[in-house]
Amino acid sequence: MTVSSLGSPSASGVFVSFEGGDGSGKTTQISLLADWFSRIGYEVVTTREPGGTAMGLELRRLVLHGEDMDPRTEALLYAADRAHHVDTVVRPALERGGVVITDRYLDSSVAYQAGGRELSAAEIENLSLWATRGLLPHVTILLDLDPAIGVARVPGGLDRLERAGAEFHVRTREAYLARAAAHPGRIVVVDAARTVEEVHAQVVELVARRLGIEVESSLAVVEDSPLDPAQGDA
Amino acid sequence: MTVSSLGSPSASGVFVSFEGGDGSGKTTQISLLADWFSRIGYEVVTTREPGGTAMGLELRRLVLHGEDMDPRTEALLYAADRAHHVDTVVRPALERGGVVITDRYLDSSVAYQAGGRELSAAEIENLSLWATRGLLPHVTILLDLDPAIGVARVPGGLDRLERAGAEFHVRTREAYLARAAAHPGRIVVVDAARTVEEVHAQVVELVARRLGIEVESSLAVVEDSPLDPAQGDA
Repeated sequence: MTVSSLGSPSASGVFVSFEGGDGSGKTTQISLLADWFSRIGYEVVTTREPGGTAMGLELRRLVLHGEDMDPRTEALLYAADRAHHVDTVVRPALERGGVVITDRYLDSSVAYQAGGRELSAAEIENLSLWATRGLLPHVTILLDLDPAIGVARVPGGLDRLERAGAEFHVRTREAYLARAAAHPGRIVVVDAARTVEEVHAQVVELVARRLGIEVESSLAVVEDSPLDPAQGDA
Repeated sequence: MTVSSLGSPSASGVFVSFEGGDGSGKTTQISLLADWFSRIGYEVVTTREPGGTAMGLELRRLVLHGEDMDPRTEALLYAADRAHHVDTVVRPALERGGVVITDRYLDSSVAYQAGGRELSAAEIENLSLWATRGLLPHVTILLDLDPAIGVARVPGGLDRLERAGAEFHVRTREAYLARAAAHPGRIVVVDAARTVEEVHAQVVELVARRLGIEVESSLAVVEDSPLDPAQGDA
């Protein structure tokens, strides 16, 4: 398999992002997809935003637990986190030919920061593209879920839903779906209400199809894999 | 005196920035100008970038003493510092009708961050203007000085000159002068090689002229001022 034709100017690896609200299962699905890529022979880096670097953790703390700040300050801090994350983690791994799977990327910024506040989606997107010198994922998996189901899955989630207001979660979901509709070549929507195994199977199928990987042969590799045969293709 | 016609959309006060390299005397001149404004009856806020807020101090520490970072990350952190500084310190004071004097603002970013690295002056300027919703000073005083004289005035300055390379300081000075030439309506160049008193007299004259304040009557107010008559108009 070659992925050098996937269109990202400075990268020869594979860049996948997962998006979705609380309780949509990003962590579990990222772990399963990472295992799958490992089994077919890739170096895999799993990472996250915000906070995918030591500096990013400090910025995340400033945004979430520091002084109140206006939307522009917040957007710039998230963009700085992303710039540093891309420069020190994502691009180096892609340039080695690896697979990078990130828990949240640019679409989170647009869905959360541009939803109903003073900033437009275009402003947030342009800021991110400038920060990353235009690096977009080859595939973005949007784990779509009714917020009422999602927050019920998270410890303390119902409190959180009440705190932020159900409307906020509904608006964020709508912003995500609007983004997927606007970027059908990159973002795929997966119904996250189904079982972990069902979602994983669909994610593998979608990723493989987008990247031009033969799933059948990949599955054969999985079955032969000495790494973690018990997990199979669950 | 009214300054409401000075053209900044959301501000009714007076916004002055000081720019210049190491040892150019910004701190001293800001203090003297603040005294002068106080004596003619203004609320004066003196502040600085980076680090004019508690969060700004943390960002400044990250930039200066944290991990190595690429120019975009650095530019975004400085822009976040500026956005927060403007939102929480500068605009509130201007909206109260006060005078804000800041030690460094947008022109520092352009002179230092766009000088010889991968980013253009236009990119840095646009980022700052977005961060601040377009807030520019009414007057910017550029204290211009031969870097060799400037660093000799600063404790440990000669070491610092050697560390950064004399070329860096020369290039920064040239970037400042180019900016002044491009923005003659806002930036005034003051020869900082002269005495503190000479520089202060010229700063007062320039600021008063730009803001439409009668210097003679202001000086009369100074002589009558009960606040700090000993300082006079030094």
